[in-house]
Amino acid sequence: MSRVLSAALTEHAGHSVTIAGWVHRRRRLKSVSFLIVRDRAGLAQVVVHEGELPPEESVVEVTATVVASPQAPGGVELVEPEITVLSEPAQAPPFDLFRPAVPAALPTVLDHAPVALRHPALRAVLEISGASVSGFRATLDGAGFTEIHTPKLVASATESGANVFPVDYFGRTAYLAQSPQFFKQMMVGVFERVYEVGPVFRAEPHDTARHLAQYTSLDVELGFVRDHRDVMAVLREVLSGMVESVRHRGHAVGLPHVPQEIPALHFTEAKALTGDDGEPDLSPAQERALSEWALREHGSEFVFVTGYPMVKRPFYTHPDPDRPGYSNGFDLLFRGMELVTGGQRLHRYADYLAALDERGEPVEPYEGYLSAFAHGMPPHGGFAIGLERWVSRLADLPNVRQAALFPRDLHRLSP
Amino acid sequence: MSRVLSAALTEHAGHSVTIAGWVHRRRRLKSVSFLIVRDRAGLAQVVVHEGELPPEESVVEVTATVVASPQAPGGVELVEPEITVLSEPAQAPPFDLFRPAVPAALPTVLDHAPVALRHPALRAVLEISGASVSGFRATLDGAGFTEIHTPKLVASATESGANVFPVDYFGRTAYLAQSPQFFKQMMVGVFERVYEVGPVFRAEPHDTARHLAQYTSLDVELGFVRDHRDVMAVLREVLSGMVESVRHRGHAVGLPHVPQEIPALHFTEAKALTGDDGEPDLSPAQERALSEWALREHGSEFVFVTGYPMVKRPFYTHPDPDRPGYSNGFDLLFRGMELVTGGQRLHRYADYLAALDERGEPVEPYEGYLSAFAHGMPPHGGFAIGLERWVSRLADLPNVRQAALFPRDLHRLSP
Repeated sequence: MSRVLSAALTEHAGHSVTIAGWVHRRRRLKSVSFLIVRDRAGLAQVVVHEGELPPEESVVEVTATVVASPQAPGGVELVEPEITVLSEPAQAPPFDLFRPAVPAALPTVLDHAPVALRHPALRAVLEISGASVSGFRATLDGAGFTEIHTPKLVASATESGANVFPVDYFGRTAYLAQSPQFFKQMMVGVFERVYEVGPVFRAEPHDTARHLAQYTSLDVELGFVRDHRDVMAVLREVLSGMVESVRHRGHAVGLPHVPQEIPALHFTEAKALTGDDGEPDLSPAQERALSEWALREHGSEFVFVTGYPMVKRPFYTHPDPDRPGYSNGFDLLFRGMELVTGGQRLHRYADYLAALDERGEPVEPYEGYLSAFAHGMPPHGGFAIGLERWVSRLADLPNVRQAALFPRDLHRLSP
Repeated sequence: MSRVLSAALTEHAGHSVTIAGWVHRRRRLKSVSFLIVRDRAGLAQVVVHEGELPPEESVVEVTATVVASPQAPGGVELVEPEITVLSEPAQAPPFDLFRPAVPAALPTVLDHAPVALRHPALRAVLEISGASVSGFRATLDGAGFTEIHTPKLVASATESGANVFPVDYFGRTAYLAQSPQFFKQMMVGVFERVYEVGPVFRAEPHDTARHLAQYTSLDVELGFVRDHRDVMAVLREVLSGMVESVRHRGHAVGLPHVPQEIPALHFTEAKALTGDDGEPDLSPAQERALSEWALREHGSEFVFVTGYPMVKRPFYTHPDPDRPGYSNGFDLLFRGMELVTGGQRLHRYADYLAALDERGEPVEPYEGYLSAFAHGMPPHGGFAIGLERWVSRLADLPNVRQAALFPRDLHRLSP
């Protein structure tokens, strides 16, 4: 007999079906017991009148009759069951997986992730993550973008110089890529519009709630833009697609409205609004104040800050042609935190040579990258969204580790 | 004026439009010249009567009138153009990008990949790759699978012990993951059905046409299977979805038919058919002979070999309960080469302990992985498809490097 998922049981009322899943909970009352079975679609209640109940996390197959029961989850329950145990647990779970709130602290959850993630609330976070990525891709697929998979092993630690992981690569030193930045720009010359969903690596020596040693970066780059505003328009569409995809899969918790026009402030305006301290960057407190301002004045949980000072942006950043010292780079703040960094890039070979020279950087490590610009590149720009950071803001998780599958950090390299 | 793509020009016959792209080729005739402009959608022919023609790979914007012209590519050409150069190349391409066949050997192509990949034939290979991944995902999304992103940094070199890249991880040694095998199995306990598209790393010391140091692995794992045959059925659907996706995007070259029932041979039958040499594995010559057999006898370019000897499969492989010494593991051969490895896995904790013990392996490095089985896991199995190998077979490329974006191998770590 083929298996029926818990969420589909109502369609089978009055009939005998087979379900399969994990024993989520046993509830023994005076004259009857309930076995709650968990599968990938939800929970099913099985009414048991006699015999032993298999312990929590046993894998079972249950053949029984579906009957309507207004009190049961989903409005149906299974009666007169024949229960087959497919697999018995050798150990009890580290905490009760059936409690509505996770009854364990974060270190316990992370140490026991292979079983802890079975908790419906923790599983839901990863479902939100998957739905977000699906919405990201669908939006870009619909806009003529091509998906790419770029090398994660690179010959030199170019982009920032610091915080890279060295790899013993057949006897010489390679580095784990900190971002697909150079590759996605080069591929604009091939496909005009590209995206990548992939791991990036940061040897981040700080133990904070917002940094991971590996995270999933959602990278976009597009050519033939007027300036950074065309990039921001694509980002707006992508965010909208991600939110709709999460909503479509039934995770409506705390989803933001993505306004048609996300409010945008120039860096100098942002500074004036939050107290100009002369720093060429925004402090976390200023980011929070700007998010509050956008919500108050524009009803938006998103706010763009454009025109960051050139001195704080990477060498490939396109300057604002009208405001010396300022760039066509932007950040997107979401719920008080920087979520996305992006901007227009330089596209002329001579501009790259000048930018590297100005920063006192040699040309040789960038040879392959620069060759793309030597052969004609259009005005272009792009952005990167940190997936775990996005999910942690969406699901209101205080620590980005709660949005990652088996997070890696300064201290954690397993499970 | 908003930009029109080359492929959409026929819809604008009689009107003035603006296109943008790269100068693909200049053709000077006696009384007229043609400028062929390449964009992400194809080529457009511009008729030029006077003035200098910008060199190949210049980035241009052309405003002109669309007129029907049966001889022109796409049946239209652009006349009375106003040409704006957005970006000038600083160097000539390493070879002519407009020749129908790539006029360069593989090392030249790889050394100059950032510009070489602009050649339509090379770009098409990467488009086939993207379309394949899209079909892979769509098939699994439609079958209740959840996409995951697993760690690429792991604490021990468990799965094979050899061919791993060591990483300096905050002063201790980590390793680049050779596959998401353990993670995807653990996640069966959470989502039942999962997939991942991501990089895997093999410190492959051999310089062959079929090995890469990094490749893209399409990984699938599903629970509640009867045995490996349920896994093979999902693989068949996935392959069909991949082929249809490539066909849908217009790449019909050499696409195989995926039969409703892919022919399958037991390992012992495969050996008997190709000359039993007593070896517990198939030689490349035997794989080719089996592919020829399947094509001849069943008209299929795919053939399954099931029941590989346990001794040649990893410790987590489920044995065939009816044939001691043989496994529920399979390979899928495609056009003479192993394309997919998969099978049913052990699912009981005690079986894992016994399997490790039998191979003389310690339990400690597997602690996190084993904990999933200690807490109840269903019968499950899965498979992995090497994306570059798939694309190289589809597009009939003799070297897998031709199907990779910026390949990494024993000697190559750039561009």
